Amino acid sequence: MINHIGDLSRSSPTSLEALAKRLSKLHYADAIDIVNKLEFDNAVYVFVHLPIEYAIKLFDKPELQRSARILEALSNEHAVSILNGMSADEATDVFQEMDNQIRQRLFVQLQPVTRTELKRLTSYPENSAGALMTTEFIAVPSSWTVQHTLKYICDVEGTRETVYTTYIVAPMTGKLLSAISLRRLILAKSNDNVLDAAQHIKPITITALTDREEVARLFRRYDLLSVPVINEDKQVIGLVTVDDVLDAMTEEMNENTHKFGGMETIDQPYMRTSFLDMLKKRSGWLSILFIAEMFTTTALQLFEGELEKAIVLALFLPLITSSGGNSGSQATSLIIRALALREITVKDWRKVIARELPIGLALGAILGVIGFIRIAVWQHAGIYNYGPHWPLIALTIFCTLVAVVGFGSFIGSMLPFIMKTLGFDPASASAPFIATFVDVTGIIIYFSFAALLLADTLL
Amino acid sequence: MINHIGDLSRSSPTSLEALAKRLSKLHYADAIDIVNKLEFDNAVYVFVHLPIEYAIKLFDKPELQRSARILEALSNEHAVSILNGMSADEATDVFQEMDNQIRQRLFVQLQPVTRTELKRLTSYPENSAGALMTTEFIAVPSSWTVQHTLKYICDVEGTRETVYTTYIVAPMTGKLLSAISLRRLILAKSNDNVLDAAQHIKPITITALTDREEVARLFRRYDLLSVPVINEDKQVIGLVTVDDVLDAMTEEMNENTHKFGGMETIDQPYMRTSFLDMLKKRSGWLSILFIAEMFTTTALQLFEGELEKAIVLALFLPLITSSGGNSGSQATSLIIRALALREITVKDWRKVIARELPIGLALGAILGVIGFIRIAVWQHAGIYNYGPHWPLIALTIFCTLVAVVGFGSFIGSMLPFIMKTLGFDPASASAPFIATFVDVTGIIIYFSFAALLLADTLL
Repeated sequence: MINHIGDLSRSSPTSLEALAKRLSKLHYADAIDIVNKLEFDNAVYVFVHLPIEYAIKLFDKPELQRSARILEALSNEHAVSILNGMSADEATDVFQEMDNQIRQRLFVQLQPVTRTELKRLTSYPENSAGALMTTEFIAVPSSWTVQHTLKYICDVEGTRETVYTTYIVAPMTGKLLSAISLRRLILAKSNDNVLDAAQHIKPITITALTDREEVARLFRRYDLLSVPVINEDKQVIGLVTVDDVLDAMTEEMNENTHKFGGMETIDQPYMRTSFLDMLKKRSGWLSILFIAEMFTTTALQLFEGELEKAIVLALFLPLITSSGGNSGSQATSLIIRALALREITVKDWRKVIARELPIGLALGAILGVIGFIRIAVWQHAGIYNYGPHWPLIALTIFCTLVAVVGFGSFIGSMLPFIMKTLGFDPASASAPFIATFVDVTGIIIYFSFAALLLADTLL
Repeated sequence: MINHIGDLSRSSPTSLEALAKRLSKLHYADAIDIVNKLEFDNAVYVFVHLPIEYAIKLFDKPELQRSARILEALSNEHAVSILNGMSADEATDVFQEMDNQIRQRLFVQLQPVTRTELKRLTSYPENSAGALMTTEFIAVPSSWTVQHTLKYICDVEGTRETVYTTYIVAPMTGKLLSAISLRRLILAKSNDNVLDAAQHIKPITITALTDREEVARLFRRYDLLSVPVINEDKQVIGLVTVDDVLDAMTEEMNENTHKFGGMETIDQPYMRTSFLDMLKKRSGWLSILFIAEMFTTTALQLFEGELEKAIVLALFLPLITSSGGNSGSQATSLIIRALALREITVKDWRKVIARELPIGLALGAILGVIGFIRIAVWQHAGIYNYGPHWPLIALTIFCTLVAVVGFGSFIGSMLPFIMKTLGFDPASASAPFIATFVDVTGIIIYFSFAALLLADTLL
């Protein structure tokens, strides 16, 4: 597709006009790919020549890059028409990115209704339904007929984000009574009352402060295409559509993977993130983990005497710390997902301990047996000589693994709860974070068992 | 909601009939929650008394537990009606879980069309669009009028999963020509030709073998509610709806988090997975990682002489191996997401190395400086005495960190590519997997630098 367009960086004004014409015959996403590749001045020029309705549709997609900059470069009149035409949710996002002076100048020229919506939507916290929702929905009084409702939908459809659900509200209070799908509307008899034609099930609703993970869960649970956002008076103030939920879920997936990998979220595409940005986002957590991990050095210094007497203990150090970290990261990844899917809540922490502790000890015993066998085999096969006290060394490794893996599972499963209780995202309990935590405790556990079991022999 | 139902385990037949009546007034998801909590016999009894259309809707949701077992317990006739009425995609899933004998007995009693669909759908690989798709779609010949099409939609809507998109096909070949939304249909003039009324943009299509991650990407990119699945003759053979994509994305998120945490995917809810199942799913990977990590012991045995001479080297061992693992898990989590979102493809591996190697070395230098400072400060403040050669020890730590963190980022970023090239999910490149890999190489790098820099002094 893009190859047809030729060398975009040297396009002449006439070829750009021709491009504008060709763009308007493409899927929005494909047109956006092309515009994103244009030089800035050319992109602005293309927007000058695009039909205004098509330009509005492109601005309505979060995929359009430099949208705030392009709006700033267009004439005031042109920018105001585009902002008035856009969905309130996307207009809010673009508007917030614009230069403050230009924003203020444009704001006073906007339609009063657009102004009110922009003001309202900017007030909701990120990751809330309010930040996802749009204010273009269809609501009709419960006194209307099916025919009247269908006629109304046809009249206003150009200005509404979705027409597949119509909300039926009380004529006086505006309270949400029911919802009717377009499917049901076209099947109903024209003269029926719209409320009678609707399903007699209370519609699923959310508030502007509902968390976006919860919104996604409701969409999955009830197979929704959209959900109304209501205020404390049960009036509809907006709606969240499934395409916004898909985008939010993808963002969430990115954030969680990055957090679990032990770094700040990078919301730009990988290849477009600059070297310095990348370094900043990654060095912060890495340095914190490094400094925390320095406690392993401190812990080992405490046991330097034991190490000197039995250098063989050092050989198993990485094996033991890594086993604790691995079991911890398993437990964490399980609990993060279970919390996200609401299979468990913060209150269930005791039940989780009751499951994770025995599992962790059993896993530790499995690894402990493997470790014991390895030492015995190496000793008997003559691959390595652990000395006359090798059974005691093997026993130390066994006991340490049971304790460290058990402790790793315990800490790994509790950390997401602790994060959530402290008001952080449970996914911030990253694999490196747990590994670091378990490393220090693992060393202490290891040398404590060694001191206990090897006293009077090796130590 | 559930509290109103009373003690479900001791319900009498009459109270179960009343329950069946009450269920059919609830949202399907809420009714399913209640049925899932019933004892098996009671659940079957409720289905005997539920209106058949409502029972079909419940079976159509993947959230209904024990659905295959319940179908087996119902009368042949009843089970056949339910299977005939269900969406083809869900019917396939349930059918595959049923007892082989009962399945064969039921199969011959099914409607021929249901039989064909079941046969076809069971042949597609998991994670493909074919496994997600349903065969209930609406297609009309391009010669029809808008009015005729709308009338047809009303007639068949009860048997189709979505009516929001109608596919327009060539009358003779059945080739997909265009798609028209219900929104556009109700706005069009009754006597217009349906093909003229449709948007003149080529519809987005997939094949039955399209990967479900790619399907999700297309839904996000084009804000789709459904997408047609076509065969090599461009005929529509099914469609994938957005609710199936949401479910698939959630499953994908679970799988990826579990894999990245270093374990097999657990697709049952956390609290309902049995102790033994949990142990099996977790001990496999944990044992493999443990055995791989044993190479650290082997590596350390090679350097036992150095360790004995300079026990101080052992103190920094966990610090160094963990830094390599952490930088590796950052790089992996970045590349896994970038691959999933198609920001990069397998072919870009050279470009990724060109980015990750300098980033890794820079990150290593940052940690190296912190490590160097720590040793210098501890030495000067008298907290610990590293001996007269402390600057050489600090230099060894610095050089090792640059190399290990650089290597960690390199391996961490390449592993998802290697996994993908070998035909595995890139997300199988788990944090523990990388940590283990980097631990062994980290030890070798560490002692090589030590041998080089501390020769003639400590070693």
